[in-house]
Amino acid sequence: MQTLRVGVAGLGTVGAGVLRLLRDNAAVIAERAGRPIGVVAVSARDRARDRGVNLDGVRWHDDPVALARDPGLDAVVELIGGAGDPALALVEVALSHGLPVITANKALLARHGARLEGRLGFEAAVAGGVPAIKALREGLAANRLRRVAGILNGTCNYILSAMAQRGRSLPEVLAEAQRLGFAEADPSADIDGWDTAHKIAVLAALAFGTPIDFDRIAVEGIRHVGAADLAAARELGFRVRLLGMARRARPGVECWVAPCLVPDWSALARVEGVENAVLLEGDFVGRVLLQGRGAGAGPTASAVVADLIDLARERAAPRWHGAPVPPASAGPAAHYLRLMVTDRPGVVADVAAALRDSGVSLETVLQRGRAPDEAVPVVLVTHAVEAAAIHDALAAIERLESVVERPRLLRIEHV
Amino acid sequence: MQTLRVGVAGLGTVGAGVLRLLRDNAAVIAERAGRPIGVVAVSARDRARDRGVNLDGVRWHDDPVALARDPGLDAVVELIGGAGDPALALVEVALSHGLPVITANKALLARHGARLEGRLGFEAAVAGGVPAIKALREGLAANRLRRVAGILNGTCNYILSAMAQRGRSLPEVLAEAQRLGFAEADPSADIDGWDTAHKIAVLAALAFGTPIDFDRIAVEGIRHVGAADLAAARELGFRVRLLGMARRARPGVECWVAPCLVPDWSALARVEGVENAVLLEGDFVGRVLLQGRGAGAGPTASAVVADLIDLARERAAPRWHGAPVPPASAGPAAHYLRLMVTDRPGVVADVAAALRDSGVSLETVLQRGRAPDEAVPVVLVTHAVEAAAIHDALAAIERLESVVERPRLLRIEHV
Repeated sequence: MQTLRVGVAGLGTVGAGVLRLLRDNAAVIAERAGRPIGVVAVSARDRARDRGVNLDGVRWHDDPVALARDPGLDAVVELIGGAGDPALALVEVALSHGLPVITANKALLARHGARLEGRLGFEAAVAGGVPAIKALREGLAANRLRRVAGILNGTCNYILSAMAQRGRSLPEVLAEAQRLGFAEADPSADIDGWDTAHKIAVLAALAFGTPIDFDRIAVEGIRHVGAADLAAARELGFRVRLLGMARRARPGVECWVAPCLVPDWSALARVEGVENAVLLEGDFVGRVLLQGRGAGAGPTASAVVADLIDLARERAAPRWHGAPVPPASAGPAAHYLRLMVTDRPGVVADVAAALRDSGVSLETVLQRGRAPDEAVPVVLVTHAVEAAAIHDALAAIERLESVVERPRLLRIEHV
Repeated sequence: MQTLRVGVAGLGTVGAGVLRLLRDNAAVIAERAGRPIGVVAVSARDRARDRGVNLDGVRWHDDPVALARDPGLDAVVELIGGAGDPALALVEVALSHGLPVITANKALLARHGARLEGRLGFEAAVAGGVPAIKALREGLAANRLRRVAGILNGTCNYILSAMAQRGRSLPEVLAEAQRLGFAEADPSADIDGWDTAHKIAVLAALAFGTPIDFDRIAVEGIRHVGAADLAAARELGFRVRLLGMARRARPGVECWVAPCLVPDWSALARVEGVENAVLLEGDFVGRVLLQGRGAGAGPTASAVVADLIDLARERAAPRWHGAPVPPASAGPAAHYLRLMVTDRPGVVADVAAALRDSGVSLETVLQRGRAPDEAVPVVLVTHAVEAAAIHDALAAIERLESVVERPRLLRIEHV
């Protein structure tokens, strides 16, 4: 059989990982693909850099878009990243030439996936080596999906796990994660929730056949989550996890990103450190959980090459198309609320009254520790309520003289 | 596009579930399959029984093998079960006529899978609706697999969970599971480990490309696990789970079924009740866990129809072939040992000496509770040791006068 001739654009950690994987496991890959898979062309910024792989005899393109025009290719792997050019130009040119594209680029997919026509593989874009895309659109293809939820960003989960375990603040743990290479120098894409948003947008489009208007997804990151919240959540029987959520609503699809309290007994509460997890819920299959490393050279390369093997075998799966629709807003949920108040009689009564006036009923009130003349935490858990009602109440609560910090609000999701 | 014309043999819970799923989700299934999928012929024992699905216009075959010869079919779904005829005859006749077969029959696959030639789908044979087969041979296709381990029998996991939670004996919990429909009237296939063995044999053959000689797999069920063992395991930081294990050995493939202690922090320890879980470990992807309902009409039908959709799309995956090889025996492991001894001085010294004489070193000895003239438990945890050495020691320990019951021995697996 003829070799599948591949061009790889982007030779960072993942790109070099793909080359290493295709070299190290060449025999099993050829057997499972029905034919050999070989990299015959590459494009990257620095030709001189040592990547630990031999590039002798591989064509070099300084311009990634020129790679997409290389006539000697059967497929292009895009590992440049970013929603704009050159990644977008590369993908568009390749597809317009009828060349299949494999990409790990969730930002590009979330923003432009619905209008890209042609053969596009993107298992590596969500949850690294965990075959969540394949499970969703092939393994669960007989189901109407009800819900897709996930812990989709390893950096955030590492930070939340480490904060909870060691009672430390986000800046401390973030600095450590940066030292260890688990967080970027500019951590915004991760900790402000954008990376999770890109991934849940891709999963939602696949699960519900409807692309979501990315700019209208409500995205909240983990910056305002404090060690005190993690400790209080634990005491209440929960963990805090940054969730991407897509859920069938009437009408439309609810889609958002937010740090949430998830119950201790939930499999998602057990996902610690840099692990990712995807929960799929279908009408016949029930709940299926997939879990593993969501990033890194090995897992991501594993997903890229799985797509290449599908391509070599001519196994195709349908994608979503059409105009993106705005997501439905998040449905009602119980909420966790932490206030810092000056410790004087009547504070809890005032807060409870404000909640009652907005139609919010309380399940739990925790007021531990007393310290006259100092701010002390009051933690409240509400019954299920629309977000609008609780925001009403919060506006009134913030005006109370004894409330001294901005209240912290987190959804509770029984995933 | 032309309808994929399907014949279904076996209209029990799962068969009726497949018909319901194809009816209820016909529109999404046709969209994802690229064409409609319709049941045009069936075979079952009792024509009169009400299965909640309309069989008007569907051809009826009293003989399942006649169904395989029906010239108006594009695929056959075999849901009869059992390693022998009529299931085997049906599958062989269909394949010999070039007809693709979808089956949930792990017993048949474990014993005859290696010599069946033709298109055969069997996602439903392992872990119900969890797409473990697809994840293993497509999602992780770029990896050399190191290990596949699983909790593959929901009945056993329900029994072990319930025994641990309520401190009750196996017979009590089994009777309850039978009342609730979680266990068969004849529970041997489940609780003696045979069902798990069939499934791990299928996973091992896929993971390592080598069929395993089923009759030589070491299979141990859960009958001898007592509530006292579950309590002691918990105290030591473990849970007891019935594991199917397939692991690359030198040479060959280690493959066995046994109740094991797994550490509390392990994802497999968190799998409670009737859930199944499959842990896949590849050289590039690392560890991937898949979890969900392993049985029942909905999940199993979901897997059967996923295979039909793959067939409709002409997505094919390779299988294993060749002569089955004997499994390598289980490698060294730490072991848990529970003895019932008469409580007199020197018992532990005698036991420790017997272990020392066989080269077994101890990590932990727990002797709680004192009751002169009564048998009391002594729990020991060894360091990693070959099974042969510990069986040597056990023979000597059983001869000690103060040891009053047959010792209980369980492997410890750090999955």
